[in-house]
Amino acid sequence: MAHSSIVIDNLQYANWSEKIFRQMQDGGVSAVHVTIAYHELFRETVLNFEAWNRYFELYPDLIFPGFTGDDVRRAKEEGRTAIFFGFQNPSPMEDDLGLIEILHRLGGRFMQLSYNNQSLLATGCYEAEDPGITRFGREAIAEMNRVGMVIDMSHSAERSTLEAIEMSSRPISITHANPHVWHPALRNKSHTVLKKLTDAGGLFGFSLYPHHLKDGSDCTLESFSQAIADAAELYGAEHIGIGSDLCQDQPDSVVTWMRNGRWTKMLDYGEGSADNAGFPLQPRWFENNLHFGNIESGLKAVGFHAQEIDGIMGKNWLRFYDTSFGPQD
Amino acid sequence: MAHSSIVIDNLQYANWSEKIFRQMQDGGVSAVHVTIAYHELFRETVLNFEAWNRYFELYPDLIFPGFTGDDVRRAKEEGRTAIFFGFQNPSPMEDDLGLIEILHRLGGRFMQLSYNNQSLLATGCYEAEDPGITRFGREAIAEMNRVGMVIDMSHSAERSTLEAIEMSSRPISITHANPHVWHPALRNKSHTVLKKLTDAGGLFGFSLYPHHLKDGSDCTLESFSQAIADAAELYGAEHIGIGSDLCQDQPDSVVTWMRNGRWTKMLDYGEGSADNAGFPLQPRWFENNLHFGNIESGLKAVGFHAQEIDGIMGKNWLRFYDTSFGPQD
Repeated sequence: MAHSSIVIDNLQYANWSEKIFRQMQDGGVSAVHVTIAYHELFRETVLNFEAWNRYFELYPDLIFPGFTGDDVRRAKEEGRTAIFFGFQNPSPMEDDLGLIEILHRLGGRFMQLSYNNQSLLATGCYEAEDPGITRFGREAIAEMNRVGMVIDMSHSAERSTLEAIEMSSRPISITHANPHVWHPALRNKSHTVLKKLTDAGGLFGFSLYPHHLKDGSDCTLESFSQAIADAAELYGAEHIGIGSDLCQDQPDSVVTWMRNGRWTKMLDYGEGSADNAGFPLQPRWFENNLHFGNIESGLKAVGFHAQEIDGIMGKNWLRFYDTSFGPQD
Repeated sequence: MAHSSIVIDNLQYANWSEKIFRQMQDGGVSAVHVTIAYHELFRETVLNFEAWNRYFELYPDLIFPGFTGDDVRRAKEEGRTAIFFGFQNPSPMEDDLGLIEILHRLGGRFMQLSYNNQSLLATGCYEAEDPGITRFGREAIAEMNRVGMVIDMSHSAERSTLEAIEMSSRPISITHANPHVWHPALRNKSHTVLKKLTDAGGLFGFSLYPHHLKDGSDCTLESFSQAIADAAELYGAEHIGIGSDLCQDQPDSVVTWMRNGRWTKMLDYGEGSADNAGFPLQPRWFENNLHFGNIESGLKAVGFHAQEIDGIMGKNWLRFYDTSFGPQD
């Protein structure tokens, strides 16, 4: 599938392989924001960076590390995919503000302030109470703003998210979540959050993880596309992108790790249940990196103009990359 | 002191302070290769990078992190000093080949394969036996060549050094040591080593650490300059630079750390002795970054041409930086 414009998927956590990198290339995906840590501490995250360095060494024709928006343009020109890194949890920075700049230097570009649970910085969306951004969280936001590490509140709770939008001197992101009004999952976001996020110049990425979709694995392309159209109406098409949350080829042990890390001996099922504990099936129209063309068609069918489609498929994230990844002016 | 050409000091380990950064600026020093680890493991080295990030944040008018030769040119233009980092021991890479690329990404540009003792990679100059480059050492050399981390054999033993020169596909360095023929210290280098190093395109930096100097702290500028002239005769002026080994303002506890790390409970005095255990006094004509003009004068007095002086004072290292710090072609 060749796309005339730039395609960016602003969140994936696949079981990486040459097959998947080749699908990115064949699917015309110029950039992917890749999760490189769920619960890993700094030293473990470095091992994950090392594993990626090995991929870059082995598959230079398919992928290379991305650091700036221009790397996306280069990827488009060269028919490769620029890989950008992010952390779903602030665990890689441990208790050390100075690690933010180190992680940024290594290629980290997005960091969630919390992942489902309370972190040292903010509250996760599964906690009963949300006391908001912590003392350390306030410092981390300022440091992330300074060096160009984007705040991501995808798995954070409402009050913490609103406070992060308020405190951050640069636009923030929700890389992968959908409007709560379309599908009232705990992980999806309220109108208040999406309105304040986008009013402040922030971006959010529509997720294709079935637990975030109306009708789950049976969600139709039409329903998904209409949800984007409805959101564009409220927040402006220029503030919307894709963050598919694609976990292609992962064994179910990985979703168990995402949900449980090392914080519980019990099994937490997150958005799943004891009956449905594993990864849900992707909708047939979005199973891998070859399927971004389907989304483009879906957006066209619900009436988006070509320019809006280009924005949602990648140019909005690209604009955001251009202004977010460098040091603060 | 304004220098017409570029001044690079290719080794210092001072007790860093605004005073010293200002002396670098006032002394017209455009780049310094700074030791950031003696015996530190990876995680400790990251803390040292963090401490430097803080210096860069606090003193942006004086210093900035250098990654390429062009950063030296920028420093010269802007009247600042580009700081390049190196490790006197391979301890920061621990037992993990993948950490070489991580350390390079963080700004590491030189790494000694051993420091006085046997390491996982090579033998140090204080060991009784030198079995040469190890199996792991061979891999590390190839990886350092690949990513652009320069091999430094300043504290290594003779056979290991000769083998490193032979095995490396790119020129290597001895950042701070003098010819053994001028002053027969264990740390100074044989004619064989210096000849093979420079024949292979390598560079060595003349040290101003008194234990490496003829007559120690009483070494004269004339004697030092003549030693450079004699070396230039044998190896070519274009293969010589300065690596002062300046340890300005350090307390004696630091030289104890350099010598003993965590590898002994006894006190090893290295090049010192029980009677003279601390840092030796610098020669009066080279006490700090304001004194590079003295060396220039000394070189002129022993008959070097302006172009040769420019090379020795910085342009030779700059040429070496330009060709050594990037990935292998």
